[in-house]
Amino acid sequence: MARILYDLAGAEDRRFSPHCWKTKMALKHKGLAFETEPCIFTEVKEKVAFAGAERVPTLKDGATGVGDSWAIAEYLEEAYPDAPSLFGSAEGRAFARFANEFADTVMLPQIAGAIVYDIYDRIVDADRSYFRASREKMMGRSLDELRPEREAFVSRLRSALFPVRRTVRRQPFLAGEAPHYADYCIFGMLQWARCSSDCALLADDDPVAEWRDRMLGLFGGYAGSEPAVAA
Amino acid sequence: MARILYDLAGAEDRRFSPHCWKTKMALKHKGLAFETEPCIFTEVKEKVAFAGAERVPTLKDGATGVGDSWAIAEYLEEAYPDAPSLFGSAEGRAFARFANEFADTVMLPQIAGAIVYDIYDRIVDADRSYFRASREKMMGRSLDELRPEREAFVSRLRSALFPVRRTVRRQPFLAGEAPHYADYCIFGMLQWARCSSDCALLADDDPVAEWRDRMLGLFGGYAGSEPAVAA
Repeated sequence: MARILYDLAGAEDRRFSPHCWKTKMALKHKGLAFETEPCIFTEVKEKVAFAGAERVPTLKDGATGVGDSWAIAEYLEEAYPDAPSLFGSAEGRAFARFANEFADTVMLPQIAGAIVYDIYDRIVDADRSYFRASREKMMGRSLDELRPEREAFVSRLRSALFPVRRTVRRQPFLAGEAPHYADYCIFGMLQWARCSSDCALLADDDPVAEWRDRMLGLFGGYAGSEPAVAA
Repeated sequence: MARILYDLAGAEDRRFSPHCWKTKMALKHKGLAFETEPCIFTEVKEKVAFAGAERVPTLKDGATGVGDSWAIAEYLEEAYPDAPSLFGSAEGRAFARFANEFADTVMLPQIAGAIVYDIYDRIVDADRSYFRASREKMMGRSLDELRPEREAFVSRLRSALFPVRRTVRRQPFLAGEAPHYADYCIFGMLQWARCSSDCALLADDDPVAEWRDRMLGLFGGYAGSEPAVAA
C-alpha cells in the first residue's frame, strides 16, 4: 500500500505549511518513499478524518493513519527502527522536542505576523474567507493592520534566533555534524516563509541563512526544489 | 591538589552568578569534589588571571586552569570520561549548546532587566560603582529607569519560556528522565534570580517552577541550600 502524506496546498499547488515540511524532511531523512496528497485549507478536515485527525500533516502508512507532526516523527522512529534515526539518542529526542517547541512558540508567532497577508495572497479563492477570519482571530488584528508592522516582527524574529545562530556558527547543523529532527523543526518555519512570501526574514550574511541553504540542499536539493517566492 | 572553583560573591557571601551555577551543578553531576573561592566583582580579574581568564566561573583543577562555563563543561567531559556524562551523547552535547545559548541570549536579558537593581542591593559596597556603571552601559538605561519596567521584563520572560514549559510538562527534565547540562544552563538563570531578588519570575503553578524545584532538590538539595531572597 502506498505511503501518503496529506500536505497543505495553496494556489498553483504551492506547499508552504511549516509543520508539513517538518514531516517531509523526516520522511526523506528515513529514506521512506511517499506521495503527497494536496489539501486546500477548507478540505483538510474531511480528507484526514480517516486518521481521527483534524489537521495536516497527516500520514497514511498502509493501514495506519497518524496526525500531528510530532506524533508522526515518533511513529516513524518506532515503525522503522532500522532506517536512519531522527533523534539519534534519548537526549537527541529531548533536543528535538525542545526545538519543536521553540519553533512553534517562539518563531511561529513572529513569522506569522510578518507573512500572514502574503499567505492570503497565495491561497486559492475558496480558502480566503476561512483563512482571513481564522488568522485575524488568532492574531487579534486585521491582516491590513499587520502589514505596516512587518519590520517589527522581522526584528523580533532575528533577535529570537540568537540560540540558533550561535549554534550553527560553530557546527554545520543544530544536531552537530549531521542534521536531525531538531534541524527539520526549525527549518520548517523558514521554508514556510520562503515558499509563501517575499519577506527577507534573514539578513544575507546571517549564519542562520547559510544553515538554511545547507538544509535546502539536503536529499538532492529536495526542499530547495520547492519554488521560492522571489524576494 | 585541591579542585577550586572561583565563584562570584555578593554581600553576606551570597552566590548568585548564573554561569557559576551552571558549573557548580556540572561538578556535582560528575561527582567531583571541589571548594569554591569567593570573588567579589572587582577582584575577579586578578584572582583568575592565573588561568588566562577574565571572568568567573574559572576552575583550577590541579595544575590546569579553565575559564568560561562552556569550556569548563567540555574540559570536565574530556578529563573525567568515566564520571557521569554531562551530555550523554553527541546530540545531547548539541542540545546543551543550544540550551546554553537560549539561556544566555533569550532568558538572561529579560531576567537582568527584572532584577538588576536587586543585585545592586546585594553586592558589597566596594563593587557598587563598578556594577552600576557596567550594568547601566549594558542595559542602555539607569537602574532607576529599569525599576518600573519589571513587570514587562517578567512578562516577556514568561513568554520566552514556552519551549521550556512545554518540554518539562511532558518529561521530568529537559534532557528526559534525568537532568544533564542543558538543564543546568537554564536552571542557572533561575537560581541567579532566586538568590539575588524577591521578584517572582514564575507563577506558582508554572510547570517551569515545578521543574526548578526538582533541580533545587538534586544532589541532596545542593542548590536549594543556597539561601533564597524571600519573596
